[in-house]
Amino acid sequence: MDTKALEKVALSIRGLAMDAIQKANSGHPGVVLGAAELGAILYGELLRHDPSSPKWPDRDRFVLSAGHGSMFLYSLLHLSGYKGMGIDAIKSFRQVGSAAAGHPEYGAAEGIEMTTGPLGQGLATSVGMAIAETMLAARFNTSNHTIVDHYTYALAGDGCLQEGVSAEASSLAGHLGLGKLIVFYDSNKITIDGSTELSFTEDAAKRYEAYGWQVLKGSMYDFDGIAKLTAQAKAETKKPSLIILTSIIGKGAPTKQNTADIHGAPLGPEEIAAAKKALGIPEGPGGEFYVAPEAQSYFKAKQDEWKKTREKWQVNFDAWAKENPDKKKEWDAFYSGKAAAASLPSFAIGDKIATRTAGNKALAAIANTNLNLVGGAADLKGPNAVGLPNTTAYSASDRGGRYLHFGIREFGMAAIANGITLHGGFRSFCATFMVFSDYLRPALRLSALMKQPVIYVLTHDSIYVGEDGPTHQPIEHLAALRAIPNVRVLRPADAEETAEAWAMAMERTDGPICLALSRQNLTVFVKDDPEWKNSIRTGAYIAKKAAGKPDAVVIATGSEVSLALEAAEKSGKKVQVVSMISRELFESQPAAIRDAIVPPGARVIVCEAGISQGWERWAKSEDILSIDRFGESGPAPKVAEHLGFTSAALAAIISR
Amino acid sequence: MDTKALEKVALSIRGLAMDAIQKANSGHPGVVLGAAELGAILYGELLRHDPSSPKWPDRDRFVLSAGHGSMFLYSLLHLSGYKGMGIDAIKSFRQVGSAAAGHPEYGAAEGIEMTTGPLGQGLATSVGMAIAETMLAARFNTSNHTIVDHYTYALAGDGCLQEGVSAEASSLAGHLGLGKLIVFYDSNKITIDGSTELSFTEDAAKRYEAYGWQVLKGSMYDFDGIAKLTAQAKAETKKPSLIILTSIIGKGAPTKQNTADIHGAPLGPEEIAAAKKALGIPEGPGGEFYVAPEAQSYFKAKQDEWKKTREKWQVNFDAWAKENPDKKKEWDAFYSGKAAAASLPSFAIGDKIATRTAGNKALAAIANTNLNLVGGAADLKGPNAVGLPNTTAYSASDRGGRYLHFGIREFGMAAIANGITLHGGFRSFCATFMVFSDYLRPALRLSALMKQPVIYVLTHDSIYVGEDGPTHQPIEHLAALRAIPNVRVLRPADAEETAEAWAMAMERTDGPICLALSRQNLTVFVKDDPEWKNSIRTGAYIAKKAAGKPDAVVIATGSEVSLALEAAEKSGKKVQVVSMISRELFESQPAAIRDAIVPPGARVIVCEAGISQGWERWAKSEDILSIDRFGESGPAPKVAEHLGFTSAALAAIISR
Repeated sequence: MDTKALEKVALSIRGLAMDAIQKANSGHPGVVLGAAELGAILYGELLRHDPSSPKWPDRDRFVLSAGHGSMFLYSLLHLSGYKGMGIDAIKSFRQVGSAAAGHPEYGAAEGIEMTTGPLGQGLATSVGMAIAETMLAARFNTSNHTIVDHYTYALAGDGCLQEGVSAEASSLAGHLGLGKLIVFYDSNKITIDGSTELSFTEDAAKRYEAYGWQVLKGSMYDFDGIAKLTAQAKAETKKPSLIILTSIIGKGAPTKQNTADIHGAPLGPEEIAAAKKALGIPEGPGGEFYVAPEAQSYFKAKQDEWKKTREKWQVNFDAWAKENPDKKKEWDAFYSGKAAAASLPSFAIGDKIATRTAGNKALAAIANTNLNLVGGAADLKGPNAVGLPNTTAYSASDRGGRYLHFGIREFGMAAIANGITLHGGFRSFCATFMVFSDYLRPALRLSALMKQPVIYVLTHDSIYVGEDGPTHQPIEHLAALRAIPNVRVLRPADAEETAEAWAMAMERTDGPICLALSRQNLTVFVKDDPEWKNSIRTGAYIAKKAAGKPDAVVIATGSEVSLALEAAEKSGKKVQVVSMISRELFESQPAAIRDAIVPPGARVIVCEAGISQGWERWAKSEDILSIDRFGESGPAPKVAEHLGFTSAALAAIISR
Repeated sequence: MDTKALEKVALSIRGLAMDAIQKANSGHPGVVLGAAELGAILYGELLRHDPSSPKWPDRDRFVLSAGHGSMFLYSLLHLSGYKGMGIDAIKSFRQVGSAAAGHPEYGAAEGIEMTTGPLGQGLATSVGMAIAETMLAARFNTSNHTIVDHYTYALAGDGCLQEGVSAEASSLAGHLGLGKLIVFYDSNKITIDGSTELSFTEDAAKRYEAYGWQVLKGSMYDFDGIAKLTAQAKAETKKPSLIILTSIIGKGAPTKQNTADIHGAPLGPEEIAAAKKALGIPEGPGGEFYVAPEAQSYFKAKQDEWKKTREKWQVNFDAWAKENPDKKKEWDAFYSGKAAAASLPSFAIGDKIATRTAGNKALAAIANTNLNLVGGAADLKGPNAVGLPNTTAYSASDRGGRYLHFGIREFGMAAIANGITLHGGFRSFCATFMVFSDYLRPALRLSALMKQPVIYVLTHDSIYVGEDGPTHQPIEHLAALRAIPNVRVLRPADAEETAEAWAMAMERTDGPICLALSRQNLTVFVKDDPEWKNSIRTGAYIAKKAAGKPDAVVIATGSEVSLALEAAEKSGKKVQVVSMISRELFESQPAAIRDAIVPPGARVIVCEAGISQGWERWAKSEDILSIDRFGESGPAPKVAEHLGFTSAALAAIISR
């Protein structure tokens, strides 16, 4: 290990970061300057990666959980030779369209393994990546060939460690014995408010030991020490490792280092000049966006090494593929990004079945042909109806299992589900009661932002939960979920629609899907549109045609389609009932498609067991039967009656 | 301690719970049966309370964090003699209108200290109650009189301990050295999915020690042991205590105890009959909703004791009041539920000032006259601009401080803020970036459900955050916050409105307020409505009148009011600009008020830097200038331009 060269790499990281942040007049130098040495050794020595083949499936993963230190990642991608992070990107740090965005954005450049910035989630999602690695290894490695064998690294700061989501995921990571997860904790003891003494004095090392992690300690500025600690982390194969590195925030900034001032603001020209002088970066224009020649040549040599390592892996992979054609076929299927056909369950008209239960049948069918679909619930396997047949539970002793017991940790669960899909090879689902989608919402937002097709199974989707009462009855949740850009909410109306909804979820590749499913039984109804299985993919179809020109078009979703069919009957009017499985999907259709389902000029009535927000696009306020208050505890029909949410009330609106 | 009587109390709890759950055909017997002994000793011996004066300010608080075990609380309130929990309430468990709702609901009956059910929050909120106790004690106790001196107890289960929110709050509780917080951990090692071995094998005791707690261990079924452990907990005045009680879920159910089956379903008549037989509850109708005579007489005697204790406190309080008239006046102000007048800051027309900064001035003025206003931010004191003048930070060594450093723990922060207001005596506020309102959303929902007027200061309220990019730019958040019933979102348009917004926040008593404040400077503008300070309390007022009958009415909120004023100018049309500080408040007004601001039949245009959802009630989709996608990283004006969110674009809509 050439520590002299690594010092020059660290120096270059500091130079690039100071200049980029100064030029943007915005950014967070603290962690970048403070952890530059780790960056140098991590990208130079520790990470198994190849910038010339950035999607190499068996690369080590690195997640910058302290995402505000984005220049840490950018400068290292730049120095390592990732094409998408040329000096122009660095120079346009934090400008519209730059790959070097304010916080790392998945997809903006190769080498950015996930979007970070919302604290704690990077660490939690890295747990998902580490899980995916073990799952892939269990499925594809053979006694002759190890084709999956990589580490997952993360860099977390004091902020990440304070957030509950990292606690949830870390507890699970310890339970699962993820020996190939290595988290560096940049312990600089400074946050925005000042010293961590203000609010964070727990013994984090002891806490992680309590989770079942190996905890190691060292200095951020000791290359040999970091190398040794990382080797120790690798040697411990049964436990994830937390390597606590004592550091100085903003190290290298002569007057601002070790103060909160350096966390989130440019250093200013004077401080930069002084810092560069002390570091030995040339003065004047030659020292701007400076990369030391030794750093350059160091990485140049590394690039050749990395390529060779990766090519060696490829040779091994090819041999494996030849020896194991069936496995190779499965591998390709895993990485195809396409869902395999499944023989979806069928249901008889008149069957009474909760859509969560129907969902379980559909999930089983899909899981049978999509062996890369894995997931589970936050301790609600039965109530969410997400058990998987013909498979075991994933655990420390069974990496081949496909069912994940996430524990009562919704947010951690969703962050981990993101990590599993981000890793590649897998589709993931996760499940909880819809009302607790609030607990995982920040991770769902990241699924949407990162375009990850995680499937969120959200059962107990309305006041029809009944006795559990307002804490467990979603009211605002359908609207709140639809509000997030790129989230697709599917709320099927009966068992048949549920099977299609699961298929639609699997078809989606560029964003998360929320399946809103009922606790209560719903009757499978006759669909008047013979092509409904196609039409539903536009977001809505005509469930019941009116006899002649309709007096009213009733748009309903999920369990309220049954209510609408009943009300249509009661009203004595000519009513067209539209089942709108996905409002946002339907709203994205061309006018011709929309108009064919909801004729312009028709009197439109909407019925949904949730708030009206967003339905005003379709109907006047007085023509929306909604629930704009918290629910009540009681048997579901009594609650509905109490809230005036009945077919009679809807019929009255229709007849009005 | 009459352990014989306590045994009969435990037996009665079991009997009542089994019968109530069976009658409702719904509920969670597991924790109730499993922890009945704790319930008996807690309500019989440990808690300092007085059912005849349930609002006694110095009562001990008890929070059932494992809220699904609601019959635990109800049976104990019933046995203790709380009037609102008569046998009729127990018999109507989980029926619409019953005080004995599926999960404990704050306000449904005296003695229910908070709404629980969403796991982890009870524990976190109890931390807030314990903080409030220390704050109150520091302000009002004198060397002659201790009038504030109570404990806060909570009962948490495996679920509560897995949730991240409890981790966040527990870490802070340890940091703050809350010696009078005592949490019982009902460790039965069974959750819905089965054994905790499936997902939760961490060393919870060690984790809590790492947080700085005293951790004690014992058996759930040892009255003397529990009494001794509680005494030990009380003796440790510098640390909160976690008392881990090993228990058997559903204890007393002969075949179902110690299985996941008992967690959340009625036992069934046969199991109940067998359980009652084993317990010694009479067979037949006499044994239904059975309360043992010994339990009855035990509590009867206790009621007298409790009353005496409380009366003794009252004598002491009265003496204190006489000796300290100023303090008594302050006490009354603290408990008045009314905000004191404040001399709000004034601003000059044309001043350029961010509403977060103006908010800080208003907060300072209000805090100066409302000494019971306490709060802080999740490590964003500066960026959120919520520092308090003339006060110190609350800490283990300074209980008189009013500023709370919550750390990077948004969810824990909000849950604690709930606890502070629930305790009584205080108003609380908490602050973070608006985009991270997602992290605390489940606690905000509970504020709304419990009608707690917690003030949420949410700054950086739009894409005008700029460089930090899409992870930090709210898009869907205004809509998502408005979606929660009983949440009031106030988005002031300039510094003057911000001062009024803070005043409006303080005026609210029956639910949470979200103050949506800008990062960027906004110009203080001339208000055409001379009565705007009154009008704004309807949710909207006319900021700029049109010269004559308006061609268009532009509704804007927050920073977009400036944009609208600019666009109105540019458009060359007669435009009335409405500043709608709170859509939901305005929508709740009578038609006459609404029509005076937005004349029926007028062409209405809406402009808000967020999604359009909900604005369709006011304008056609094509007349809404909104942002229905994730943002971008870049300087704010460039981002706005990139997204087509400009005064020119709005002027074009107006002119169309």
